[in-house]
Amino acid sequence: MKNSLGTSVILTLFGESHGPEIGAVLDGLAPGIPVDEASIAAQLARRRPQGRMDTARREPDAFRIVSGVFNGKTTGAPLCILIPNTDTRSSDYEKNLGLARPSHADYAAHVKYGGYEDWRGCGHFSGRITAALVAVGAVALAALSAKGVRIATHILRCGEVNDKPFSDFPAELDLVNGKDFPVILPVEAEMENCILAAREQNDSVGGVIQTAVTGLEAGLGEPWFDALDSVLARALFSIGGIKGVEFGSGFALAGMTGSEANDAFCLESGRIRTRTNHSGGIQGGLSNGMPVVFQCAVKPTPSIAQPQQTVNFLTGEEAVLHLTGRHDPAIVRRICPVVNALTAIVLCDQLALRYGTDYLR
Amino acid sequence: MKNSLGTSVILTLFGESHGPEIGAVLDGLAPGIPVDEASIAAQLARRRPQGRMDTARREPDAFRIVSGVFNGKTTGAPLCILIPNTDTRSSDYEKNLGLARPSHADYAAHVKYGGYEDWRGCGHFSGRITAALVAVGAVALAALSAKGVRIATHILRCGEVNDKPFSDFPAELDLVNGKDFPVILPVEAEMENCILAAREQNDSVGGVIQTAVTGLEAGLGEPWFDALDSVLARALFSIGGIKGVEFGSGFALAGMTGSEANDAFCLESGRIRTRTNHSGGIQGGLSNGMPVVFQCAVKPTPSIAQPQQTVNFLTGEEAVLHLTGRHDPAIVRRICPVVNALTAIVLCDQLALRYGTDYLR
Amino acid sequence: MKNSLGTSVILTLFGESHGPEIGAVLDGLAPGIPVDEASIAAQLARRRPQGRMDTARREPDAFRIVSGVFNGKTTGAPLCILIPNTDTRSSDYEKNLGLARPSHADYAAHVKYGGYEDWRGCGHFSGRITAALVAVGAVALAALSAKGVRIATHILRCGEVNDKPFSDFPAELDLVNGKDFPVILPVEAEMENCILAAREQNDSVGGVIQTAVTGLEAGLGEPWFDALDSVLARALFSIGGIKGVEFGSGFALAGMTGSEANDAFCLESGRIRTRTNHSGGIQGGLSNGMPVVFQCAVKPTPSIAQPQQTVNFLTGEEAVLHLTGRHDPAIVRRICPVVNALTAIVLCDQLALRYGTDYLR
Amino acid sequence: MKNSLGTSVILTLFGESHGPEIGAVLDGLAPGIPVDEASIAAQLARRRPQGRMDTARREPDAFRIVSGVFNGKTTGAPLCILIPNTDTRSSDYEKNLGLARPSHADYAAHVKYGGYEDWRGCGHFSGRITAALVAVGAVALAALSAKGVRIATHILRCGEVNDKPFSDFPAELDLVNGKDFPVILPVEAEMENCILAAREQNDSVGGVIQTAVTGLEAGLGEPWFDALDSVLARALFSIGGIKGVEFGSGFALAGMTGSEANDAFCLESGRIRTRTNHSGGIQGGLSNGMPVVFQCAVKPTPSIAQPQQTVNFLTGEEAVLHLTGRHDPAIVRRICPVVNALTAIVLCDQLALRYGTDYLR
Repeated sequence: MKNSLGTSVILTLFGESHGPEIGAVLDGLAPGIPVDEASIAAQLARRRPQGRMDTARREPDAFRIVSGVFNGKTTGAPLCILIPNTDTRSSDYEKNLGLARPSHADYAAHVKYGGYEDWRGCGHFSGRITAALVAVGAVALAALSAKGVRIATHILRCGEVNDKPFSDFPAELDLVNGKDFPVILPVEAEMENCILAAREQNDSVGGVIQTAVTGLEAGLGEPWFDALDSVLARALFSIGGIKGVEFGSGFALAGMTGSEANDAFCLESGRIRTRTNHSGGIQGGLSNGMPVVFQCAVKPTPSIAQPQQTVNFLTGEEAVLHLTGRHDPAIVRRICPVVNALTAIVLCDQLALRYGTDYLR
Repeated sequence: MKNSLGTSVILTLFGESHGPEIGAVLDGLAPGIPVDEASIAAQLARRRPQGRMDTARREPDAFRIVSGVFNGKTTGAPLCILIPNTDTRSSDYEKNLGLARPSHADYAAHVKYGGYEDWRGCGHFSGRITAALVAVGAVALAALSAKGVRIATHILRCGEVNDKPFSDFPAELDLVNGKDFPVILPVEAEMENCILAAREQNDSVGGVIQTAVTGLEAGLGEPWFDALDSVLARALFSIGGIKGVEFGSGFALAGMTGSEANDAFCLESGRIRTRTNHSGGIQGGLSNGMPVVFQCAVKPTPSIAQPQQTVNFLTGEEAVLHLTGRHDPAIVRRICPVVNALTAIVLCDQLALRYGTDYLR
Repeated sequence: MKNSLGTSVILTLFGESHGPEIGAVLDGLAPGIPVDEASIAAQLARRRPQGRMDTARREPDAFRIVSGVFNGKTTGAPLCILIPNTDTRSSDYEKNLGLARPSHADYAAHVKYGGYEDWRGCGHFSGRITAALVAVGAVALAALSAKGVRIATHILRCGEVNDKPFSDFPAELDLVNGKDFPVILPVEAEMENCILAAREQNDSVGGVIQTAVTGLEAGLGEPWFDALDSVLARALFSIGGIKGVEFGSGFALAGMTGSEANDAFCLESGRIRTRTNHSGGIQGGLSNGMPVVFQCAVKPTPSIAQPQQTVNFLTGEEAVLHLTGRHDPAIVRRICPVVNALTAIVLCDQLALRYGTDYLR
Repeated sequence: MKNSLGTSVILTLFGESHGPEIGAVLDGLAPGIPVDEASIAAQLARRRPQGRMDTARREPDAFRIVSGVFNGKTTGAPLCILIPNTDTRSSDYEKNLGLARPSHADYAAHVKYGGYEDWRGCGHFSGRITAALVAVGAVALAALSAKGVRIATHILRCGEVNDKPFSDFPAELDLVNGKDFPVILPVEAEMENCILAAREQNDSVGGVIQTAVTGLEAGLGEPWFDALDSVLARALFSIGGIKGVEFGSGFALAGMTGSEANDAFCLESGRIRTRTNHSGGIQGGLSNGMPVVFQCAVKPTPSIAQPQQTVNFLTGEEAVLHLTGRHDPAIVRRICPVVNALTAIVLCDQLALRYGTDYLR
């Protein structure tokens, strides 16, 4: 399932950065889920470039629900949402045709597709495709919310500026979901300065984003290849900019002893909980009833306006690349709703598998 | 595919820690691949507990090829290998029945399976199952090796002791594949001391392991959900002890600028390469012809011989757990062949998808 | 994969009979396949209602390629084609809301979807959706044709009128592919009379269609669940009107002895062939190099203009149904291109699995 | 999933006719299902050759539960059952090596596997493998039975001898499930004579088997590729001897008009039913609450003791084949429990998808 994800609730993505439209199909959603166009628009707005921190490409994201909704609710048939591309400038790409942009998919795609790939704006590899994902994901997020499952992602680190990790559940999830620039501490201005400084130097910055999910019961996931961390990681690494995923204390666990890292069980108001959550809510591949928490490493955007050494894979010669298009100096803000959407879709799938196709109705 | 992994080459795992046998089925392998029992035995030996650094459970791993091999070669039908369990002591687990071992799957499994789970030695969640995976993976490793694809994993960090990252390809891969304790620098004694010190304190340590793959052509993987990093991460997170996965510079990319992180393309003897490999050989979800490099965070083994606070999920009361069984103070060494096996199986699948089912013959 | 089909080449369908658009995504096609809009239009024309033998709904099928094509060739990214619905009359359905149309999906869909289903014109169950399937299937057919694989379907039986089975390969395949009303013998007028007679009696007729595939090499398929007959049958039974599928002599084999039914092998110009083809080109789930031949039983169209006894599932009362909409008195002609399209997509998947993703380039 | 079937409940088959053991893994079954070894043995007995009507190969089918069962109940982990092969005579096959047995998979398998296939007794293509399938299927059958779902298969036709179709539900299902030779009418002796007559002429006979399922609620299945008929047909055609599958009136629908074929809805004791069941309990791919009924065409066993014209695919010469092994003159009796097992597994999967993984507990 190359461009599809899931077992009972299945996402399929299609479209290219400079094609007429991009789209997503979400199949297997329970019938009867309210589809609120305003909340789709709100999620798209969070992902949309705006202001000086983002690429200058301006897309209104005038999405269209093509199927799967009737009288304002899901029908149980595949939900398809389409979004037109309107602000494309293919000429930016034509003049660099054959020049492999460093740390982009251009060269690998050229080998894979033998020169038939749509090279305009990364084609099907483009982050633009995530708009369609965010649109259908908004329906999944709403369905989960109605079941008491909250998902939020904030910027834990942008360049050298840090936010604090989630520690107050679910208050901090609501906090960051209410912000355009999702951070817990008042570090927005500092992060923005960091991004704008990178832009001024024709450069870009990366960061770390952190996601938390509350309200999940224990027992979701499978022991081996459909482990909850396995299916989440599969989804997350499909985003081009994500180069690392860790659950709970993740890489920091490497420096702990078992007695430090183990999450002691306890009772809180009669419910079984753990005192710490180094496991990130997942043990042995299963949710354990604690908040599911994970971090993703986001690499600095590879499109930068500095001259870069590269190779022309059409001529087989070394060359210098001057990118003149419209670049994102950072995507840490805009990637947050994408991760929320993917997480929601994965969880809808897990819940449907465990409790049946009508569970989210 | 709960306990299965793959699209064209498909792995299925079954068995429990204290059942009669564990097993793995590897379906879709090309016909005509030599199956060398000595190399299966050698991979199993690398995974086997031995000496004071590992659990005292001693299993001879007397594997048996049940199907899929004829005249010493794969037939193209499913390859099944079974390994008996011989050294089980269920009594160690009986006395703690109901006591959720911290950072183990016990409690979540109890919720998921409603009390029907085989709780002896973690049942199907046990690392013991990885022996079967390593056995069939040995055939995959040999098939890849015949095609010039090398895979190696070493201990990059054990507790506070560090090895150096891979930098000399493929020499360092051969080096660590030739060692019982896979490290590049002469840090074996230091790491062993670290592990034995933890054991003396009835504790355990974690670490980081690093894997490299050489000889892969560019163009393997897919743009979205079968991205090469997606399928590898899905496989890797199925191992209970792994809590983080990063490709190339991974989380360190969060602190770099684009101009630092980008891998400039260049020509080396007429071949397209990158000067650096912060991308870990994967760009846009596709292999780019550079070594594929990734790190996994391994948590400290959760079974420790110290009293631990917990809850008895059968009685709903808080309790103190005294584990008296046979514990691993660290699994960083033994997890390396498991990661190699999984990586080999994922790559066989990718190669079969791209080049056809007979490619590995 | 509820509305998806395939392993390496994957079809996904979406849309409803009275929604704005229907669509299909075909993912995993090799890059570099020419996409000829005229041949898509030609296949759509074969499926389109026309004249008095078909429903009066008139759709121009003004398809739109949304993704996956660049410079007139497939890119390797998902191919999506959309077709607007223009001639919908939902009022025909409103007045019968709750009345289960006999031998339609209405009632079962109502139970499954809990009343949230789009009941207008069968919603997602509608044969209308097959237009999108035929559109993407046209690309698959052309790709196969370029590899020497021909597919054709003719009406073997319509009501009580029979055509002859395929016996002259590939000449008869070309013959029926060149006709609007695909039959081998000159039985078109007789069949049309049969259909028009049914229409006059406010009734409908069924039939049998026969498909042949030539040019397939031996060895496609798998021994068990991806047997070539298994994957074809799965695809074929997804069409609502198909109630039986048989390969080669099919049900007639029940009355033969082994000595009659066995297909003796022989040499023809040095190639291994069988003298008879009772097996329909598939033995043990694998193609054997002979033409693949199968028949599908097509039930009479269930929408008829006679009063029918039924139940109103909204009120729980018995009722009489008077269907006044636009009905097909037979679909045997229009189902032929749908079966060709599905067969082509299944075979593209099988060829890609066996020979790799670039095989059809 | 070459040798695997299912989405939430997944069957995997492995083993060869003359290998040490054959096996099946059934993953995804609910925990807590009682596993009764006597009922497994009983199903195996129904499939086992015995007497003069079957092959002389005698296998005790001493099955062994390897995993997935604890304290007599399923655990939710993969259930694996192994059955040793004991009565193999590979010499029967050695002497005909290279001679393609007509209507067997030999030749196609040789092309597919390049000569590496295990040719002894059809290897992995052998009907012997179905013993493992029947063993795990017995657990699925029992689980369904506890939920009120009954499955039965009888011999509707053997050579020229006919039984009557199912018409009395569920009484006739219990009737045939209670018989060694599953027929409704007292036609056992006549069918046996037919089989023995074929044997005396060194020949074989085919037939038709009919399966009925009662107790299924409406709404199982999906509109398109996971239509209930699609998933059943996929499973059924994986059995080598099955060359046709039809639901309800199947091919007979081709000769009916809509007014004859349509199943009028009615109320029976307040429940919605249909007066006739030409649809075989499936409309639009969904169960409609009526008994699911289908027929499978079973070809005459291709191994016959007459000289047959063939080709030696190793030498490329025409040859005459004299099969001297132990042959089945008919498999219509022994295929019935196999179809029951497959049907049960498919329905467990469908129920788990619809109602969740714990539904069958």
